Amino acid sequence: MNIAVDCADPYRLAMFWSQVLDLPVGGEDTPGDDEIGIRIGDGQELLFLKVPETKTVKNRLHLCLRPEIRRDEEVERLLAAGAAVVDDRRRPDGTGWAVLADPEGNEFCVLRSAEERAATS
Amino acid sequence: MNIAVDCADPYRLAMFWSQVLDLPVGGEDTPGDDEIGIRIGDGQELLFLKVPETKTVKNRLHLCLRPEIRRDEEVERLLAAGAAVVDDRRRPDGTGWAVLADPEGNEFCVLRSAEERAATS
Repeated sequence: MNIAVDCADPYRLAMFWSQVLDLPVGGEDTPGDDEIGIRIGDGQELLFLKVPETKTVKNRLHLCLRPEIRRDEEVERLLAAGAAVVDDRRRPDGTGWAVLADPEGNEFCVLRSAEERAATS
Repeated sequence: MNIAVDCADPYRLAMFWSQVLDLPVGGEDTPGDDEIGIRIGDGQELLFLKVPETKTVKNRLHLCLRPEIRRDEEVERLLAAGAAVVDDRRRPDGTGWAVLADPEGNEFCVLRSAEERAATS
């Protein structure tokens, strides 16, 4: 199963998501390609497809990341990579999550790491 | 990484996708739950979340299925399960794909099986 993402600039968005997921962009893909993929698992690809229309509403499908490092460190790392905060749902007790957006405004969530979750549940 | 899907009726949609993917809905989930998941891989869940807003535009993220059986048989199976055809991109030479929609209108693609793809590429 692939996950396809409509976008204006597949290469730019793939480069961003490559940083997010720490996974390489397909070796033969170059700037200007209309379709660029990141292999995210066995037979699974995150595929960026060029489309003419722009994003207008909140995405009805989104990715939720469970980081290996602490949630707040991951949020800082992603902000530095070009993400923006859309909705900060982190609570004072350490639970909750952050909703970020990629450079084209696609929302995604950063959850607590498995370790953080285990410590508070 | 999870894939979250906003929807009006999480249980109904999860039951449909359970048929699509031939994977069970989470054992403790019941009709009326606001959040229902299908485990799609190691640490990966397809998560249906109840939201108040309805779908308004074509989804910017969508799933692409690579069936085990022949593409056209898979399309027939999914139509019987409650999907609808949105955009038929199947070509007379056997290449191409079909865009279907789930019961809440979320678009997804059905590609050719790996076997069909190998036979024509």
